Amino acid sequence: MGIITLTSDLGHRDFYVAAVKASVLSLAPQATIVDISHEVRSFDINAASFLLRNVWPHFPLGTVHVIGVNPDLSSRTPHVVIHYMGHYFVGADNGIFALLFDQEPEDIFEITLPQGHDWTFPMKGVFATAAAHLSRGGSIEFLGNRVHSYNQAMLPTPMLEGDTLKGHVEYVDHYGNVYCNISKTLFEQVRKKRKYSILFKRIGFAISKISNYYTDVVEGERLAMWSAGGHLIIAINGGTTTHGGGAAELFGLQVDDIIRIEFHGEPYSEDDFPD
Amino acid sequence: MGIITLTSDLGHRDFYVAAVKASVLSLAPQATIVDISHEVRSFDINAASFLLRNVWPHFPLGTVHVIGVNPDLSSRTPHVVIHYMGHYFVGADNGIFALLFDQEPEDIFEITLPQGHDWTFPMKGVFATAAAHLSRGGSIEFLGNRVHSYNQAMLPTPMLEGDTLKGHVEYVDHYGNVYCNISKTLFEQVRKKRKYSILFKRIGFAISKISNYYTDVVEGERLAMWSAGGHLIIAINGGTTTHGGGAAELFGLQVDDIIRIEFHGEPYSEDDFPD
Amino acid sequence: MGIITLTSDLGHRDFYVAAVKASVLSLAPQATIVDISHEVRSFDINAASFLLRNVWPHFPLGTVHVIGVNPDLSSRTPHVVIHYMGHYFVGADNGIFALLFDQEPEDIFEITLPQGHDWTFPMKGVFATAAAHLSRGGSIEFLGNRVHSYNQAMLPTPMLEGDTLKGHVEYVDHYGNVYCNISKTLFEQVRKKRKYSILFKRIGFAISKISNYYTDVVEGERLAMWSAGGHLIIAINGGTTTHGGGAAELFGLQVDDIIRIEFHGEPYSEDDFPD
Repeated sequence: MGIITLTSDLGHRDFYVAAVKASVLSLAPQATIVDISHEVRSFDINAASFLLRNVWPHFPLGTVHVIGVNPDLSSRTPHVVIHYMGHYFVGADNGIFALLFDQEPEDIFEITLPQGHDWTFPMKGVFATAAAHLSRGGSIEFLGNRVHSYNQAMLPTPMLEGDTLKGHVEYVDHYGNVYCNISKTLFEQVRKKRKYSILFKRIGFAISKISNYYTDVVEGERLAMWSAGGHLIIAINGGTTTHGGGAAELFGLQVDDIIRIEFHGEPYSEDDFPD
Repeated sequence: MGIITLTSDLGHRDFYVAAVKASVLSLAPQATIVDISHEVRSFDINAASFLLRNVWPHFPLGTVHVIGVNPDLSSRTPHVVIHYMGHYFVGADNGIFALLFDQEPEDIFEITLPQGHDWTFPMKGVFATAAAHLSRGGSIEFLGNRVHSYNQAMLPTPMLEGDTLKGHVEYVDHYGNVYCNISKTLFEQVRKKRKYSILFKRIGFAISKISNYYTDVVEGERLAMWSAGGHLIIAINGGTTTHGGGAAELFGLQVDDIIRIEFHGEPYSEDDFPD
Repeated sequence: MGIITLTSDLGHRDFYVAAVKASVLSLAPQATIVDISHEVRSFDINAASFLLRNVWPHFPLGTVHVIGVNPDLSSRTPHVVIHYMGHYFVGADNGIFALLFDQEPEDIFEITLPQGHDWTFPMKGVFATAAAHLSRGGSIEFLGNRVHSYNQAMLPTPMLEGDTLKGHVEYVDHYGNVYCNISKTLFEQVRKKRKYSILFKRIGFAISKISNYYTDVVEGERLAMWSAGGHLIIAINGGTTTHGGGAAELFGLQVDDIIRIEFHGEPYSEDDFPD
């Protein structure tokens, strides 16, 4: 019996998440349901895709991921099930799948299940039905018609301007840690062993080193790190939103703010020196 | 093995919900526990009953619903288990059952299990014990003595004054959507195909049409809809508490505020025209 | 298949808790995961130990309790698994175990599993791996090397100064109830049947009686009670943070504030009178 994950803006205060679980458990009593987050900012598919990108690969093959952000059905946003790297994703094709996937999915099906009386609340209706079916080992073909593409959407990518790599803040977590859209891979490609300064909003607080541990700097001091997913984080050692202030509070950083990395001096050719 | 749902004001920050789950799982290790909400406003049995009314029918037959709002035992508020339409409800008879049920329940039993050392926290004590017993397929008769009624409480119902139907705000969800206690059934009975205006607190923002979709109005515009449960909702297309403001914020609407529907013109007799 | 509990400051908004669950379920698909709290104040091992002390004994024998507060590995804070009264505790030895346990544990093992690429997030990495192993019935010896002690930390204990017992506020729950570190056992030992006054910050609001029920005082009135765990609580009948104000708000009480109990008159010898 499979795992079904739920990502939404349904919150924890109302009855909505429980209604989705009631639907799922009515059809797949043995399913294991895991909440990713129900506190995604309303209508924010960037935040939803950020959360899901960071966590779906850690689930077992065959897991079904239900996405309830902007789930409404329209002619431009059909309900789909996508089979991608052995996982299933169920949601409205509102652009989020383009933000989630790097490669071609195995299968894309437009859901043709009857919407029933739950058409105002697809996560409880067709999404729960499709997820329960898949978690019981049912075939994706049963759920609708094969289609060959999904809607495209652009995750803004970092740009290189001269010796400066320009990215932006992609997510701020509840500690106040600031996640940027600059990956370790890109950084090392551009860097070519040069020195660098990481610059942001608050002038005079550049960071010139990427730490391995929070404790590489003294308590209360800023640092940059690579996240488990390989993206640049700006944080404060020992500082969080509820404890002295995290980086987001202390530097006034918000989603979409620019983060620049300036590289200094001559780039080394890859062949100049052994590493 | 059955499902046990939990509805309470115990919150997510403290150890209370986990203590209830520890009790249940000690007695019924295979039970599936589903949180309805633990963020009911303290002492608010109206809100608790609103949440539960909207979600319990979606669970499978045999589900046990534990209610931990105003759970204290007294001579006037005995602990009871009620069998209603194939579901079980466990809680203190503080009036909430009168708010939940429209028909006579199958069975009502006053719980006579020993209160034990958990008498200050009935949800962890007798409620968890009773729920675990029922979820394992145990008989309701085992839990206490049959009684024949529960405490009455009145959910205020809409009133018709001349050509105006007067209801009130029953619940505001975390999006800022406003749920009213006017049902589609009542509305259509009174309406008799007349035009109407839905009026509330903020003068000049009457609504004269009930939409099927949020997107029937332009973004940022107010609308009225029927909820999945058949009750009137006032909402903003694309507006929520965390995104530009929901209807509750924009119109200053709160629980118990009056919602009026004025009907205009001559009512059609049901027989005058085909529909 | 066992139960695994999670206690952390990871919050509910981000993807962190789901990442831990993904790890656990990948290794132990049948495990039952129970969240104790993910809203512990950052770095606050006192609050984490308070929550866990109040709830772990209610879980079945064999339950694995994973602690994700200050989880980072260092030479001074090794990752350990402790077998204590039939339960397992997994975390960094940052002092929290000294706050949790009153007696010698059965076994203490330093975890020697490879940290892998999740070393920045031990709860998802080695803690999840160790917990999954134990919940499947695996042996503790497999996880590392036996050690013979853990780091000591002091929970400040109440002091007796003349006829005054001085304790402090240990925790404030989400209702605004104030938990003190004065136990019923200590209180009765010192009291010797004397009268007493419970005094705190706000002058003029002494309490001279410990109630059995909230309703022993009129609504809106202050009271003292013993918690289910046997510690002194100061509360308001019918008052909570979201409903008129709990004791913490009304009396301005916070964690670490002093609570004094003054005893009046001559102590009775235990032998003077029958109880």
